[in-house]
Amino acid sequence: VAVKPQLASFERLGWRGLRILEGICSFARDQGLLVIADGKRGDVPVSARAYADALTSNGIGALVDAFTVNPFTGADSIEPFVDAAERSGSGIFVLVRTSNPGAADFQDLVVDGAPLFEHIAQVVAGFADRLEGSSGLTGMGAVVGATEPDHLERIRELLPKSIFLIPGVGAQGGKATDLAAAFSPGRASALVNASRSIAGADDPARAAEQLRESLWEVSGAPSRTT
Amino acid sequence: VAVKPQLASFERLGWRGLRILEGICSFARDQGLLVIADGKRGDVPVSARAYADALTSNGIGALVDAFTVNPFTGADSIEPFVDAAERSGSGIFVLVRTSNPGAADFQDLVVDGAPLFEHIAQVVAGFADRLEGSSGLTGMGAVVGATEPDHLERIRELLPKSIFLIPGVGAQGGKATDLAAAFSPGRASALVNASRSIAGADDPARAAEQLRESLWEVSGAPSRTT
Repeated sequence: VAVKPQLASFERLGWRGLRILEGICSFARDQGLLVIADGKRGDVPVSARAYADALTSNGIGALVDAFTVNPFTGADSIEPFVDAAERSGSGIFVLVRTSNPGAADFQDLVVDGAPLFEHIAQVVAGFADRLEGSSGLTGMGAVVGATEPDHLERIRELLPKSIFLIPGVGAQGGKATDLAAAFSPGRASALVNASRSIAGADDPARAAEQLRESLWEVSGAPSRTT
Repeated sequence: VAVKPQLASFERLGWRGLRILEGICSFARDQGLLVIADGKRGDVPVSARAYADALTSNGIGALVDAFTVNPFTGADSIEPFVDAAERSGSGIFVLVRTSNPGAADFQDLVVDGAPLFEHIAQVVAGFADRLEGSSGLTGMGAVVGATEPDHLERIRELLPKSIFLIPGVGAQGGKATDLAAAFSPGRASALVNASRSIAGADDPARAAEQLRESLWEVSGAPSRTT
């Protein structure tokens, strides 16, 4: 349903990489796929506005349906992205709890009895209404790694309507069968991302299909046979 | 002594903006200026490696002397940047305490009796040796806003050898006269950045010269007359 180009992989090729990326985004859209620009941008407000422009109106912006944002610089730095997304109809996935081992270094530090990622989730929740769609879900989403299922469950409590982008399944050790909580508001409420475990499989199409089936199952529907 | 192109301002122009940026970096280097790529990149290790490549070897990487990094995803995500900087001889400025009001939302939250930014400074300190130069200073630097001078003093205690990149002077309200602590290890130990207060001045050259003079004074030398 969606492709999530990692901007870093194109930036390492210089401006030519970015030109290639525009072509890929354009092709993906023509195929009916959603495009999630995974750049994890974040900066103080004046620069956040420029990044938000880049992701919603110019360059690849016109070809992107959603993008990832790093919340480190605080709510005033998330606001310009929300503002731009309101105007363009885009979705946002704010990093709340990432899937790498080092995520614990800062995101899990306990502040007033709750880990930092819960405080971030609360700030994200404060923007939820502004991107709420007619389905009841909100485009003010969160990146929540599959590698710590308990965190995922807790973040779903704090963000009942947000769409989750869930990395860490496959190569990083997360299991599709642990993700039921993420889908609690309904099947459209989470996007599970797998890259290396599919691209590196002997039969990528089969690996993708197996992942799709186990997610379909855990999200509550009878398994489809294709 | 240095120019600090904000990558967001070029990205908003799409790949053509990045091509222009390469030209600007190349021109600045020809003029003998250091180039600091201000992109505040940060991502899980596999993607951090790609960003580090983009900033040290390909594209603008070959034209960049230092770059800014967002620490949110933890030490394992900073490591690939340090590794690349060791090989290229680049410097790194990790966001420790930014200059915007929203910085307080997460960076100032208290964990075990100390604000989060001190915990980040300690992680930065752990990498300091790897980028130490012959002057005794280390290229494992920190972004520390001028808007909270007390924080700056505390972070200097935790990072005695790091070069500081100091935004927030001028338009954001920080004062050059509050920055003495930042320069305590010597005059080369801090880079003060001002953008809007210079670019928007009636006489930008004069505004820049005034800022340079007050910094020269606060950093310990007799004021120079030009």
